[in-house]
Amino acid sequence: MTTKYKIVFVRHGESEWNQKNLFCGWHDADLSDTGISEAKNAGKMLKEKGFTFDVAYTSVLKRAIKTLYAVQEELDLHWIPVHRHWRLNERHYGGLQGLNKSETAAKYGEAQVKIWRRSYDIPPPELEPNDPRHSELARAYEQYDNSIVPLCECLKDTVNRALPYWHDIIVPMIKSGKRVIISAHGNSLRALVKYLDKVPDTEIPELNIPTGIPLVYELDENIKPVRHYYLADEEQVKAAMAKVAAQGKAK
Amino acid sequence: MTTKYKIVFVRHGESEWNQKNLFCGWHDADLSDTGISEAKNAGKMLKEKGFTFDVAYTSVLKRAIKTLYAVQEELDLHWIPVHRHWRLNERHYGGLQGLNKSETAAKYGEAQVKIWRRSYDIPPPELEPNDPRHSELARAYEQYDNSIVPLCECLKDTVNRALPYWHDIIVPMIKSGKRVIISAHGNSLRALVKYLDKVPDTEIPELNIPTGIPLVYELDENIKPVRHYYLADEEQVKAAMAKVAAQGKAK
Repeated sequence: MTTKYKIVFVRHGESEWNQKNLFCGWHDADLSDTGISEAKNAGKMLKEKGFTFDVAYTSVLKRAIKTLYAVQEELDLHWIPVHRHWRLNERHYGGLQGLNKSETAAKYGEAQVKIWRRSYDIPPPELEPNDPRHSELARAYEQYDNSIVPLCECLKDTVNRALPYWHDIIVPMIKSGKRVIISAHGNSLRALVKYLDKVPDTEIPELNIPTGIPLVYELDENIKPVRHYYLADEEQVKAAMAKVAAQGKAK
Repeated sequence: MTTKYKIVFVRHGESEWNQKNLFCGWHDADLSDTGISEAKNAGKMLKEKGFTFDVAYTSVLKRAIKTLYAVQEELDLHWIPVHRHWRLNERHYGGLQGLNKSETAAKYGEAQVKIWRRSYDIPPPELEPNDPRHSELARAYEQYDNSIVPLCECLKDTVNRALPYWHDIIVPMIKSGKRVIISAHGNSLRALVKYLDKVPDTEIPELNIPTGIPLVYELDENIKPVRHYYLADEEQVKAAMAKVAAQGKAK
């Protein structure tokens, strides 16, 4: 297989809710100061390696959008089109949104939290439609048929709603020769990686994507992955992955 | 006439080239620290008055884009679609780009500079196609037919290239009920204001739009202006207009 295209994924830097160890999901948490540094650093790594882009995709959540803005600043690429879509949002964490991950682990057990966090097809409890956590950013979703806006998601749900955007919007752009960057979230990026690398349902729970380290996928003419790599050395990547994996532990 | 729609224009804050008193045009100057404060302040004024938006338009120049980003931050509106287009760019200053306004005034006389800056239909000298000033941001324009990318513009040219975007893209969005904000430039905003208020060619030279103060146009069902006003008191607006008008003077 010969590389014809490259696409870059960036998982947003630490958010204020990552910092507090809260389940975030569709809550519109801002980046922490650390997260802003991570985002700038992602831009610097891309610049150092000579990357540039013609178009950017992101979610409607500000932690991914502001990560992209920081990358634009470092690459001096403010002018490129930026497309936001809820299909690139983080997984909807339903009734867990706003709960502390360690406290939830202490209450329900680490095993149950791991199931909610990492199982492929077991969703967390649904958010009640009248829950105030539901109305936040409601304007961003009110243009859609209610029935497609989730009240909770397992990763399988996230895969199912992210892939139409990948297939219909992003792939045609890649095939037109445009260099694409996607700034998104742990689970929406896992959804895309799972599809691209055909990761089995049983293995995806252990796949962690570190924050703020650009992940490059080289693709052949049929958008099949030829190889992928992070723009950081192995030690940095391992440390960042371990940090993400540790978030669900009771302390 | 009854107000049916409102649209908000924001002229970007001071750029590093405003600060140096250089003709800027399509040069992609960054905001100065003052410009960033002005942009944040524009966002604060909008927030204080309860404005919100469904969609944003801007140019491909970072001083307008970053002004918009600052407004999004203040209004917590990162999620709204942002559309960039060169038709909202500043007027192309041709061969004057990068020259000092005061020095140019001293050399050619204030009258000539005033003609280049403020006459409606006399363009400045063209930029040579092989001028290095032309290649900056070339990627942003390479997708277009060369013949529509200008080498210089008088305000009339700017009006003629901005109005198709207004009529084809922005007006349908306003008529669909979306609340629109446009973050742009002195001359692209004068182009829109000239059209909306039917300002005669002879009067437009003296119309100055201050930087960083949101300008609200209330429009009737046919997109005819009912009234307009700045979101600042009269003294602030006058001081800001005088600052802009003074830029072309020899010092």
